[in-house]
Amino acid sequence: MKVGRAGDAPPFLVMDVIAAANARAASLPPGAPGIIRMEVGQPGTGAPRGAAEAAIRALQAGTPMGYTEAFGLPSLRARIARHYRDRYGLEVPEARIAVTVGASGAFPLAFLAAFDPGDRVAMAAPFYPPYANILTALGMRPVLLPCDAATRFQPTVAMLEKMDPRPQGLIVASPCNPAGTMLAPDELAAIAGWCNANDVRLVSDEIYHGLTWGTVAESSAAAFSDSAVVVNSFSKYWSMTGWRIGWLLLPEDLVRPVECLAQNMFISAPHIAQVAAEAAMDCVEELEANKAAYARSRATLLAGLPQAGFTNIASADGAFYLWCDVGHLTNDSAAFCAEMLNQAGIAATTGLDFDRDRGARYLRFSYCGAEGAMAEVPQRLAQWLAR
Amino acid sequence: MKVGRAGDAPPFLVMDVIAAANARAASLPPGAPGIIRMEVGQPGTGAPRGAAEAAIRALQAGTPMGYTEAFGLPSLRARIARHYRDRYGLEVPEARIAVTVGASGAFPLAFLAAFDPGDRVAMAAPFYPPYANILTALGMRPVLLPCDAATRFQPTVAMLEKMDPRPQGLIVASPCNPAGTMLAPDELAAIAGWCNANDVRLVSDEIYHGLTWGTVAESSAAAFSDSAVVVNSFSKYWSMTGWRIGWLLLPEDLVRPVECLAQNMFISAPHIAQVAAEAAMDCVEELEANKAAYARSRATLLAGLPQAGFTNIASADGAFYLWCDVGHLTNDSAAFCAEMLNQAGIAATTGLDFDRDRGARYLRFSYCGAEGAMAEVPQRLAQWLAR
Repeated sequence: MKVGRAGDAPPFLVMDVIAAANARAASLPPGAPGIIRMEVGQPGTGAPRGAAEAAIRALQAGTPMGYTEAFGLPSLRARIARHYRDRYGLEVPEARIAVTVGASGAFPLAFLAAFDPGDRVAMAAPFYPPYANILTALGMRPVLLPCDAATRFQPTVAMLEKMDPRPQGLIVASPCNPAGTMLAPDELAAIAGWCNANDVRLVSDEIYHGLTWGTVAESSAAAFSDSAVVVNSFSKYWSMTGWRIGWLLLPEDLVRPVECLAQNMFISAPHIAQVAAEAAMDCVEELEANKAAYARSRATLLAGLPQAGFTNIASADGAFYLWCDVGHLTNDSAAFCAEMLNQAGIAATTGLDFDRDRGARYLRFSYCGAEGAMAEVPQRLAQWLAR
Repeated sequence: MKVGRAGDAPPFLVMDVIAAANARAASLPPGAPGIIRMEVGQPGTGAPRGAAEAAIRALQAGTPMGYTEAFGLPSLRARIARHYRDRYGLEVPEARIAVTVGASGAFPLAFLAAFDPGDRVAMAAPFYPPYANILTALGMRPVLLPCDAATRFQPTVAMLEKMDPRPQGLIVASPCNPAGTMLAPDELAAIAGWCNANDVRLVSDEIYHGLTWGTVAESSAAAFSDSAVVVNSFSKYWSMTGWRIGWLLLPEDLVRPVECLAQNMFISAPHIAQVAAEAAMDCVEELEANKAAYARSRATLLAGLPQAGFTNIASADGAFYLWCDVGHLTNDSAAFCAEMLNQAGIAATTGLDFDRDRGARYLRFSYCGAEGAMAEVPQRLAQWLAR
């Protein structure tokens, strides 16, 4: 029987790395040093305590946890609007905020509302693979802009100007995954202005906001554009991956289309996750402590990895990733990562997951795992590469 | 700036009815009889106590609630496989079970994995509107098979035989929404056999299983077809709407395509909802008590509504809906429902939500609300229609 073409979507290779790391960990003899997990973009911490406690209280009170409105609980939407005031100094109407099933659930809504099958949507390479895979599944066409350290692995207006034909859309991410690099405010403003002037719909993935290290200032596309779609998530700074909760800040013209699509495709985001997320936004102390731990791990790795032989690391402006050019060590980063897992006990993700053309000379380390384990990494890698 | 065509998806009209009922309830003077809510397909009960308690325990134990595997927690998938053994006497491999973000999240995965843009997917009318709206958003073409009481508002092999050209897919629902009617096992078997013989992918929506009233035997398409996609949900029998948790039972050839799509579009279903759902499957006593209350409400309404003037009700085989032909009372069921809300204080959904061509002579009552309120309905309606 026939199978749809969308089912050809490539898997996340990182899922295979996770499975390999699980298998390796299970095969270790008792007492052996464990596997250090640097392959997943998932904080080792769970939701902040205040979020879990809000969920417990709501359940103990017998809250029925029925469907919410398609765009989410009014109190959560108001709290997110306050977040834009507090963090960015921006006034955004609650009516433009749509709570979603994670950022993952936000992308199909945004793409379907903004684009048609056949439309071309540009993005930097390397990139978060579901951007391209979701677009392709929906019949749209990802167009890659190869980027490198010269532009911090980010697109520029000059690159956009050269695109012929012009795309219908552009996805930017700052901080981005996998490179961890950022667009400076003036760069993001210039891109947003170019998109506006050229009728190109800008989709700004801001899910790593809050996890920035002061090398580049954090800014939201909402500050520079009324036509941009902003995607955010409670998974990263708020450490709530498996709760599946995120949001869209929508331009006026996409509010009603996204609402109709969300009613049909999701009904609503999980009610209990909405309750927890609203509480999480007030758990500043715990979340800032998580962030401080990432900052220490980042500093340890940026000091230690070059000595171990990883000398070409992208500007680590934000998120919790280090994007390493390992072209001087291998021409097959998938095999290199497999050996690193088996011999050094460190799981990392091959760059091929993020850049099929050039990823064989890159790998991604994620440093959001336990701080103690991260501190062991430079020495393990140095010993392994010295062999 | 351009907006995608998919954003033209029609809204659920029931959402407007909910808003009108909320507004009417808020405008009532103190002491006035309240609004009886029969417009929503959402149980008045929350998740069973054992499910909420399992979620509380997991949170209190500090479970991080990270991403699960894309197809869900292995223990939940095993529990669902056991459910097929216990309820249907069917052996299904856990590997074919995919836990999803509700049935809503299951449909886009199933449609994208099974069909291509332009493909024609048949379904009975009246129908659950997101079937058609999701297909349309994905560039596929819903094809309606007008059904009436003569076939219990269900499609037949004779109708399928007449289709020229043959569709690529067929959606069936038994019990169905809005009619609450069912396909007998031999009818479902015949349809499944025809689909297999004609290379038509069968999608069987079984989300109202467990809520059947003994008029027609309950059967799963999985019993009759290895190529069918079965959709199920914890929202109805298990009373867990806002937790957003359901599942797919997939044919072998769609397992890997759906897994790749799910990794990209959802990552995983909400972790805490998976924990709660697994516990809910053991809360038999509480869930059967809910079901017994629906059965009493159904009996009250089936006895009282004809006396009140609602004499043409579809065979109420399952789910918690009564699909009423009100052609002898109105030729505009939307206006009729608005008057019923304002004058009798009863909210119901116009049939136009489910059948744009013929729905003006139908309305849907949902009887999953509080039993005491349901018992008041016949008298209120009789008094209202008598005026």
